[in-house]
Amino acid sequence: MNRRNTTIGIGLLGAGVVGSQVARVILAPDADHRLSLHGILVRDVERQRDGVPSELLTTDPESVLGDDRNDIIIEVMGGEEPARSYMATALSAGKHVVTANKEALAKHGDELTNLAAQNGVSLSFEASVGGGIPVLAAIQDSLTANRIESIRAIINGTTNYVLSSMNESGMSFEDALSEAQKLGYAEADPTADVDAHDAVYKLSILARLAFGASAHPDMIHREGIRNIGAKDLRYASALGFTIKLLAIARVGSEGVRCRVHPALVPVDVPMANVNGVLNAVELNGDLIGPLWLQGRGAGAGPTASAVMGDVLRIAKGISAKPSPLSINGELNGVQSTDAQRSERIDAPNVVDMNDLQARYYIRLTCLDRFGVLAKIASVFGDATISIASVLQFDADDEHGLADLVIMTHPSHEASMQEAASRLRQLDVVASLENLIRVEDYDTV
Amino acid sequence: MNRRNTTIGIGLLGAGVVGSQVARVILAPDADHRLSLHGILVRDVERQRDGVPSELLTTDPESVLGDDRNDIIIEVMGGEEPARSYMATALSAGKHVVTANKEALAKHGDELTNLAAQNGVSLSFEASVGGGIPVLAAIQDSLTANRIESIRAIINGTTNYVLSSMNESGMSFEDALSEAQKLGYAEADPTADVDAHDAVYKLSILARLAFGASAHPDMIHREGIRNIGAKDLRYASALGFTIKLLAIARVGSEGVRCRVHPALVPVDVPMANVNGVLNAVELNGDLIGPLWLQGRGAGAGPTASAVMGDVLRIAKGISAKPSPLSINGELNGVQSTDAQRSERIDAPNVVDMNDLQARYYIRLTCLDRFGVLAKIASVFGDATISIASVLQFDADDEHGLADLVIMTHPSHEASMQEAASRLRQLDVVASLENLIRVEDYDTV
Repeated sequence: MNRRNTTIGIGLLGAGVVGSQVARVILAPDADHRLSLHGILVRDVERQRDGVPSELLTTDPESVLGDDRNDIIIEVMGGEEPARSYMATALSAGKHVVTANKEALAKHGDELTNLAAQNGVSLSFEASVGGGIPVLAAIQDSLTANRIESIRAIINGTTNYVLSSMNESGMSFEDALSEAQKLGYAEADPTADVDAHDAVYKLSILARLAFGASAHPDMIHREGIRNIGAKDLRYASALGFTIKLLAIARVGSEGVRCRVHPALVPVDVPMANVNGVLNAVELNGDLIGPLWLQGRGAGAGPTASAVMGDVLRIAKGISAKPSPLSINGELNGVQSTDAQRSERIDAPNVVDMNDLQARYYIRLTCLDRFGVLAKIASVFGDATISIASVLQFDADDEHGLADLVIMTHPSHEASMQEAASRLRQLDVVASLENLIRVEDYDTV
Repeated sequence: MNRRNTTIGIGLLGAGVVGSQVARVILAPDADHRLSLHGILVRDVERQRDGVPSELLTTDPESVLGDDRNDIIIEVMGGEEPARSYMATALSAGKHVVTANKEALAKHGDELTNLAAQNGVSLSFEASVGGGIPVLAAIQDSLTANRIESIRAIINGTTNYVLSSMNESGMSFEDALSEAQKLGYAEADPTADVDAHDAVYKLSILARLAFGASAHPDMIHREGIRNIGAKDLRYASALGFTIKLLAIARVGSEGVRCRVHPALVPVDVPMANVNGVLNAVELNGDLIGPLWLQGRGAGAGPTASAVMGDVLRIAKGISAKPSPLSINGELNGVQSTDAQRSERIDAPNVVDMNDLQARYYIRLTCLDRFGVLAKIASVFGDATISIASVLQFDADDEHGLADLVIMTHPSHEASMQEAASRLRQLDVVASLENLIRVEDYDTV
């Protein structure tokens, strides 16, 4: 049966901000005339959704997943379950799946990818990383001739908005977060963003596609931004840096190191100037060199753009093909996940942080008296860490305390952590307030 | 015949810097094992090319184009002819064509696209715009659900290098060009770059894909950078701008306006900080909003990255398909040119510059005496152009001359050109040195 010019049935799981926008795009008068939306799974059919016909809404998953007219299931409900189960059901039934779900992909990517391959259908997830920015397409399609060497990214808009506000206004983390919540840039429960789970999921997906590395979220070093104080941004600024939550994956001789943590970024590099809710991804390939992609990383429009890009790519494949393709899952016009890379390279190990080399920023609250610096310096010396600069800020005469900011030369993570734990035990150190890695940009 | 796992034959036209790199990538031990390079057309078989086996070289086009083993012809010789003829021959013979040739594409895109469609093969040209930056893939694939509203780009590395050098060092255009030539960033004959033909070809290709507009290079307003003086960069800087050669296409109610000209760009926007030989493309889509892509716009590695991205996409399609596809040219896994857009929108008109609204920078050499400004101001007043500021620079007491820089409020191009021609005739104006449009960035 030649399906050219026949209808392509679509079932939609979720009609929140993103799902409603996707529905409106599919139903728009100038949309691809082949697409036909047959049902939308929601939690509450009574809620008003502009431009979304209520007769399409249902609370019964089976009526969408089991509808034989549906060739493609779009999953934009988010969260691990029941989204994972629904996607598994759809793939097993021979339906293509398009999803924006970074958590389900990061945690169950192997299972879902295998199901897609076994059933000769595609699993597409451009919208799961970087909103509308076509970063997965770049990695999976345009850059396939490259060996990708590193990824550095700002891929969480909430934390970037919070850090940008703190940097601009001197606000505390709590105030900046509260403002972001009022503006709709942060959730009522901000844990997934603020504690960097969201960025870790996205980096896990990127690392899988770019390096073929099976980087489960548990294997990715994760630090959020709760501990970043207004003082850190002020002191960083005095030293020529700003602070960003970076997601970094880099191939070394031992494997791929994946990490998400706040980092000091020199103020004069492009990454320092990605502000507000923008996302940016910097890829380095052996042929292409550095490639920079920047845009809106979240929101209804950008996410719908990515979802519909995937849908239309699949639709093109369905229309042009005489029948659903062979069982090996290599569909034309449809991105396979990491098949292309894995043909060329063996999956690298995911390595831990111990051998990371970086410069460090350490903020201490110390007693403000003679001899303190000597004690602190000896801890660094014992750990064979070389100090680049020491600056004292904000002496508090009443309590006899002062802030001390130490910048190191490049050092090993393991040594630095050892030194940090010894610093915490020093009687002249009231507290080790923060330890932030510096991201160096000499190579770009 | 199922061609999965069979060899995909490749013929290469051209083995200069880019062609040699492409050959090395295809022949590399870790390359896609299906690809087989059967012949390379060159002008001089004696020239040494590192890593390119001399037995593959030939000066006989027929031995490459007529080789039945070749499924894909890669054209990286450049120039209009004989490249166009060779590509037409290859497409007519049912071979896929991958090219980096912006001139042939811009001038003969309709013919070549039609030939590809008639013969059920693909014509891919990611490398023709922005080197390795996957901007055509973004437009043709990832952003297909968007209506693209505007494109703003720095897409010529040579002129961007020259303008960056002039801006940094205060050098004259001639000195900066000469330095660029010594460094290999400019050709011995720099006409194509400096007079903006190259950027016009690329914008023509972008406008065709993004808007479905048949923007032949002759229909695109073109101004190069020969007339930009060190003084213009100095005065622009005093006013808070730098000068960039921008390629701009924007959809309005009347159609698409395409233009390539030097523009004053505010120093604090990202476009002002794209320096050296970098390229950057800013797309605005109705769903995605602004999307920014930046990278190396030329050179062997980036160009080979884009060429091989196209080749591997086609190879994937060939392997997965039982036979060459239908005659309509819609190949899976292969970019069609503007078919997707044209399904949705009627091809818009390409409109001229007359109704452009912009702010203008005008640099005059005037007599340095009373009453001069009144005469000049009356010309602007007669043309209903509102002056925003007037600054005098560099008085030359010996000759009784001074530089006058006038910034206008937003005005119509036609009125401004009329005023310019009257200014040139004023007895108090020794010469109208330059008229440069300001590119405003309030919307981004």
